[in-house]
Amino acid sequence: MREMFQQELSELQDRLVEVSELVTEAISKATTAFGESNVAMAEEVIENDAQIDDRALSLDELAIQILARQQPVARDLRIVVSALRISSSLERMGDMAEHIAQLTRYRFPEKVVAKGLRGTFKKMGALDVEVAETLTKLLKTQNLKHADKLRDIDDEIDALHLSVFDKVLGETWGGTPVDTVDATLASRYHERFADHAVNISKKVKYLSTGEWASDGTAPIDLP
Amino acid sequence: MREMFQQELSELQDRLVEVSELVTEAISKATTAFGESNVAMAEEVIENDAQIDDRALSLDELAIQILARQQPVARDLRIVVSALRISSSLERMGDMAEHIAQLTRYRFPEKVVAKGLRGTFKKMGALDVEVAETLTKLLKTQNLKHADKLRDIDDEIDALHLSVFDKVLGETWGGTPVDTVDATLASRYHERFADHAVNISKKVKYLSTGEWASDGTAPIDLP
Repeated sequence: MREMFQQELSELQDRLVEVSELVTEAISKATTAFGESNVAMAEEVIENDAQIDDRALSLDELAIQILARQQPVARDLRIVVSALRISSSLERMGDMAEHIAQLTRYRFPEKVVAKGLRGTFKKMGALDVEVAETLTKLLKTQNLKHADKLRDIDDEIDALHLSVFDKVLGETWGGTPVDTVDATLASRYHERFADHAVNISKKVKYLSTGEWASDGTAPIDLP
Repeated sequence: MREMFQQELSELQDRLVEVSELVTEAISKATTAFGESNVAMAEEVIENDAQIDDRALSLDELAIQILARQQPVARDLRIVVSALRISSSLERMGDMAEHIAQLTRYRFPEKVVAKGLRGTFKKMGALDVEVAETLTKLLKTQNLKHADKLRDIDDEIDALHLSVFDKVLGETWGGTPVDTVDATLASRYHERFADHAVNISKKVKYLSTGEWASDGTAPIDLP
């Protein structure tokens, strides 16, 4: 029974990594499409979001089946419950990528990023991709150094998010209301994408250390 | 054992209703503070959000304890897992109320709502309060007529959300970039608040009918 349980947990972990890889592809294409006003690529991201939703839903079904079949308790139970929550956050990260792609499509053939903000959004986009890649590594290895890295990247993204508002509300901003709306929403989506990843990393850390948002770096044996 | 389980599920339901009531108070005060630039009321909402988070966390702990102690299967298991998800959505609704309050505080003593949008945000705020009240009734009674009502109110809120963008991007909009940013963010928070409630109602419906997003109106015996 125990061996079967370990196998099922391992399957659950593989599925989380798989969804995280799909999310990485989505945010990579979404931020590229956003920067280049590439409407075909944006549409691909929008279309593929259903696949992320499906994979997350099927992962949830597996987690519920494991709960029913294996009746885990204590830490094992928390691992399965955390998988459900991580799945939900990954699904939302996919939605943020889709929202960024939708902004690109709405404004096409106009550029969605106003001139003065291209460099900022290029950085935010690259950091969001790094967030997704780091999250995949964290889910694969449970090595908490990746959680620490996520927190650091998130700080950089938060600073860029604030700088977007500084720009838009500053005296030199010559953007139209459309530019202002787009910058506000796009910045929020980029920032929320990273927030969800940090939330996931807190759950992984919690399983390792037993403390929410702990800064501990104890090794973790999450299967 | 079965009787104990029913008692614990009933406790879980009471806790969901309790958090929903706290969220109702939060959105009611947040939207009032937003409309009136009442910074003291906004600060109360911001301060009280920690209480919502705490209550949601303790509800989650209860759900995990029920899973460990009662080892539910089939529909009983799905009820407990759904409670975890509903709790998470309620917690996010509290965050949306907090964000609306934060916008109010940031701009104080300036008014956060631009002149041309006061009527729209007044309506959106009143509808968000109605959403929270209807959600509490749904969680209390599991009567699916409340789920249908939530969907209808959500449609109204979505229409108002779109009308905010029409206004801000229209030719008569004389707002500053600050007005544009605030309207964009505030409208998004109001709209997301209702989305979370609709997501919760889908979970309640699912428990009743076995189908996600079903339009069925079969009676539900969720304790």
